Amino acid sequence: MSSNKNQSGKPAGDSPPPKAVISRLSLYLRELQHLVRDGRLTTSSSGLGQRLGFSDAQVRKDLAYFGQFGHPGIGYRCEELIPVIRGILGTDRGWPVAMIGAGNLGRALLGYKGFARQGFRITAVFDIDPTTVGRTIEGVPVHHFDDLERVIAAEQIKIAMIVVPAAAAQGVADRLVAAGIEGILNFAPVTIALPEHVSTVGVDLAIELEQLTFSVVKKRGG
Amino acid sequence: MSSNKNQSGKPAGDSPPPKAVISRLSLYLRELQHLVRDGRLTTSSSGLGQRLGFSDAQVRKDLAYFGQFGHPGIGYRCEELIPVIRGILGTDRGWPVAMIGAGNLGRALLGYKGFARQGFRITAVFDIDPTTVGRTIEGVPVHHFDDLERVIAAEQIKIAMIVVPAAAAQGVADRLVAAGIEGILNFAPVTIALPEHVSTVGVDLAIELEQLTFSVVKKRGG
Repeated sequence: MSSNKNQSGKPAGDSPPPKAVISRLSLYLRELQHLVRDGRLTTSSSGLGQRLGFSDAQVRKDLAYFGQFGHPGIGYRCEELIPVIRGILGTDRGWPVAMIGAGNLGRALLGYKGFARQGFRITAVFDIDPTTVGRTIEGVPVHHFDDLERVIAAEQIKIAMIVVPAAAAQGVADRLVAAGIEGILNFAPVTIALPEHVSTVGVDLAIELEQLTFSVVKKRGG
Repeated sequence: MSSNKNQSGKPAGDSPPPKAVISRLSLYLRELQHLVRDGRLTTSSSGLGQRLGFSDAQVRKDLAYFGQFGHPGIGYRCEELIPVIRGILGTDRGWPVAMIGAGNLGRALLGYKGFARQGFRITAVFDIDPTTVGRTIEGVPVHHFDDLERVIAAEQIKIAMIVVPAAAAQGVADRLVAAGIEGILNFAPVTIALPEHVSTVGVDLAIELEQLTFSVVKKRGG
């Protein structure tokens, strides 16, 4: 069923890992990448959780879903754990990504360094604005939306970002699904309906701000 | 990232709700806002969870952390539950927000409609680029970073977004803390160190893409 690509052995339980575990995996991966950049070779559950605010028990429990990765007396080898987590997350392969919408946010995302660092390369942008189509932004060609199916097939793109106004999002999503896209990152502030076999993650930047104000109010004691 | 102790805890008067519950509250709030826009007066736990992919038991358990909001035979009254959740999240009051960095991403965020809709108003932008300082972007004045303390005090700003390159982020954060900021939304791809009384949420857009590829790979069957 949900066979995660684990390297050694099975998950601790038979139930699939909760979504929260998967999002913490991303955080562990960042932390390991920072450690490597700082010249560190190994770390521990508490070392991995510390800066992120997670207990060592939490880190151990999360990783135990996928196997046994620690070494007695050593802990985790950073360079060993990084590809394991990337394998679980599916970012051990390169993902060409299509972006629909070359407005302000789209342009900002094209310049966002964090994507390439994790294996994502935006290789095609689509828009309908005649002043933008045919140009190149941050080295990426802007195609007309009419060419969506052709370009996506030619470049074997399976992942797309929707960065269009809310009213246009569902129509764009339908075209993407018909073109064979399997995963959609949706920046439009609207929920899109998709067939079962297509994955979607919605990005709502105000949610992060709400999480922040919750924490601020809590610390004030109110 | 603030401390995250209790991931699988149950509703109990004394233990604070896990972070995952707080982020689901934001999603429930959006769903309620959509329902009201569609003219719906009431909903149920299953109605609230359905489009979000959560079970009715999950919704009930999450809300039970904060009180009893359903009405027998009616369910939840949307217009009643919305201010309750906003009160919990702290967005029942208006939050003026400072933005540091007026590059591409900063400009995109200034045009992002989702913030104002949830009670956040970016009222001051700071930069050091002489071609930008003194201008107005999306109706918001761009101040010189040298004026940070003065403007933040005058406008009683407690929340700030860092939208500067990674190398500058910690220095900006230190200045913000000294200026009395209580919460920082950090878009720079780096972890910033802050005193205990200041909250921070890091936005890493690649994490959302990783969550997406995990789901895509899982649906492919490995």
